[in-house]
Amino acid sequence: MPHSSQRGQSMPESPIRKLVPLADKAKARGIKVYHLNIGQPDIKTPQVALDAIRNIDREILEYSPSDGIKSLRSKLASYYHTFNIDVTEEDIIITTGGSEAVNFAFMSCLDPGDEIIVPEPAYANYTAFAIGAGAVVCPVVSTIEEGFALPHIDKFEDLITPRTKGILICNPNNPTGYLYTRAEMNKIRDLVKKYDLFLFSDEVYREFCYTGAPYISAFHLDGIEENIILIDSVSKRYSECGIRIGALVTKNKDIRKSVMKFCQARLSPPLLGQIVAEASMDTPKEYMQDTYDEYVERRNFLIDGLNRIPGVYSPIPMGAFYTVARLPVDDADIFCSWLLSDFEFEGQTVMMAPASGFYTIEGLGKDEVRIAYVLAKEDLKNALMVIQKALEVYPGRTL
Amino acid sequence: MPHSSQRGQSMPESPIRKLVPLADKAKARGIKVYHLNIGQPDIKTPQVALDAIRNIDREILEYSPSDGIKSLRSKLASYYHTFNIDVTEEDIIITTGGSEAVNFAFMSCLDPGDEIIVPEPAYANYTAFAIGAGAVVCPVVSTIEEGFALPHIDKFEDLITPRTKGILICNPNNPTGYLYTRAEMNKIRDLVKKYDLFLFSDEVYREFCYTGAPYISAFHLDGIEENIILIDSVSKRYSECGIRIGALVTKNKDIRKSVMKFCQARLSPPLLGQIVAEASMDTPKEYMQDTYDEYVERRNFLIDGLNRIPGVYSPIPMGAFYTVARLPVDDADIFCSWLLSDFEFEGQTVMMAPASGFYTIEGLGKDEVRIAYVLAKEDLKNALMVIQKALEVYPGRTL
Repeated sequence: MPHSSQRGQSMPESPIRKLVPLADKAKARGIKVYHLNIGQPDIKTPQVALDAIRNIDREILEYSPSDGIKSLRSKLASYYHTFNIDVTEEDIIITTGGSEAVNFAFMSCLDPGDEIIVPEPAYANYTAFAIGAGAVVCPVVSTIEEGFALPHIDKFEDLITPRTKGILICNPNNPTGYLYTRAEMNKIRDLVKKYDLFLFSDEVYREFCYTGAPYISAFHLDGIEENIILIDSVSKRYSECGIRIGALVTKNKDIRKSVMKFCQARLSPPLLGQIVAEASMDTPKEYMQDTYDEYVERRNFLIDGLNRIPGVYSPIPMGAFYTVARLPVDDADIFCSWLLSDFEFEGQTVMMAPASGFYTIEGLGKDEVRIAYVLAKEDLKNALMVIQKALEVYPGRTL
Repeated sequence: MPHSSQRGQSMPESPIRKLVPLADKAKARGIKVYHLNIGQPDIKTPQVALDAIRNIDREILEYSPSDGIKSLRSKLASYYHTFNIDVTEEDIIITTGGSEAVNFAFMSCLDPGDEIIVPEPAYANYTAFAIGAGAVVCPVVSTIEEGFALPHIDKFEDLITPRTKGILICNPNNPTGYLYTRAEMNKIRDLVKKYDLFLFSDEVYREFCYTGAPYISAFHLDGIEENIILIDSVSKRYSECGIRIGALVTKNKDIRKSVMKFCQARLSPPLLGQIVAEASMDTPKEYMQDTYDEYVERRNFLIDGLNRIPGVYSPIPMGAFYTVARLPVDDADIFCSWLLSDFEFEGQTVMMAPASGFYTIEGLGKDEVRIAYVLAKEDLKNALMVIQKALEVYPGRTL
């Protein structure tokens, strides 16, 4: 029997993979499980998006162009203009989710053995795609004590070798909710310029910046236009994660040419998702504002509630809809499993993502979890109660 | 300015990439272009599939499971049973088109430097995905003189090295339309068994076998169950190429485990496509029969017409909806360009795929083109006329 490739074996498993069967079993026992573990919002998809798909008038669901439907790319360019991101439809390649944009960016920019520097904790799938491309993730650790601010730029520079090809940031950040300041972004810019690196910038949460501090896109940085690979997705902003539509945006023609070869190999991004995404661009301002207000309220409620639980600490996330919280536990992996397998409070429990999966350095994040505030306030209230009660009796409690 | 990876540079361009701007220019001049260059059928998508999407009752277009919606996998298993392919829903992983199934198969089974043996001419994107995975395609050439039958199995065995990990076949074949016989498949089976290789078997055209000869799936071969990676797609059989739903089917648990890691990294296959695909499984028998009859008629009409043109030869394809034809020209790449840039007959011209793009060996297929018979008979009639008239005046004619 032939076996899996080394690459397949070394791919990381999803941080919550081991928890899924435990959650299923808990549900089978009749326990209500609050899913704080995944960025799947409970917000309804905009009506204009649903209407577009219900009113589809095509008779053949045919291939679209490999770089996506032109009218969608054009609308997306206009959308970026509202954020002072100066790109044209020629700079935009539609991808099958932001995931494919990350994958194609790495495949097109990095060769096996090439290195990218990534502030950790970081979205676990960056590492997965890097392994797929044979590239190496070199982590710079941000800490909960500093609210997950950008580590000192010297720490980035210390990691630079002849194989360093790029820096990857996620801003606003998944999993920490941190929003990089202009000063931090300028430091990144200087380093990118000095070593002529790629700047992979995942900005899918740009609609969700809560503090009044400005959102600084990589494209707002001067003098590195050809170095920027912007990763985007419509999933989060219109609560349509399932349609799998994202974008890779770059002014670097050489990279676009390579990316297009990967696009042609997979023929086209999903047609129906593109129709939905294009219609979503006409989502009324009220929907966007209501969604924003809802997340602000959930954030305030969740973080306040977390910090009231003895021994728990969470910084206040400035954007996105996640926070990384520190818990008074021996091992968050064990605690998250235990919540599903051995605990319930009034027939309820909670599923959270252990933060260890967001670090590549072994041993980090051991007492941290990522919590997504994608549920209604009432559910968050119950989930907080479950966490509090659980920590009161968890055998591996440390404080 | 940072540059593309070596990998990106070495990715092949689509065989028709260079022709697209020429076709656009021809259309801009008011010329009608018959697209025989791509497997995009003009057949309408089944009504049940279109209805499913128009009647969608979801309010949130959310992520689906990484391996696809369970009810779709279950229906697909039942579908395979009608072809005596004995698999369960556990063996099936839904992918974003057959393309992603090829990609994940290579990423999960092959490491950089590993080799796969592929009969040529072959679907060009296999090579693209192999390059993406760092693997090497070792071609065995089938010839038009032998109707693109499987080359002698010794030619496969001659290529086997310690790095050989698999054999890839497409059956019925794109681009040749060849359908492998039981005797040929048994020879492949023996070789796969002897060297414990993977057998990657792309069978997306199984509905289109025209000669009464049986369709032999890789899963019909005894004793190599754990070696088989079946590639499938709903695109062609229901004329819904744009929805991007395919499948990777294997009984090899070790491979499924690796493939699932790649699936998790890209989160989920397209939700809307899966809804359409599942509904498509209930397409009435009449639709399938009508489509089949239509392709048989087109095939007969096209091949007869091609072979009536002086100097042109095409074997009779036994399946799929392509043929590779030999033309009396110096260079089919030049001829196909010339058709778009310098020729018209009564305001019409033809776009075909030069066959050189389907060979990895330089210089092969120089006088061959792939023709897809995805257009109505009336259009095929006009296209044949264009080809005949063009060959009468083409400056690079050889016979």
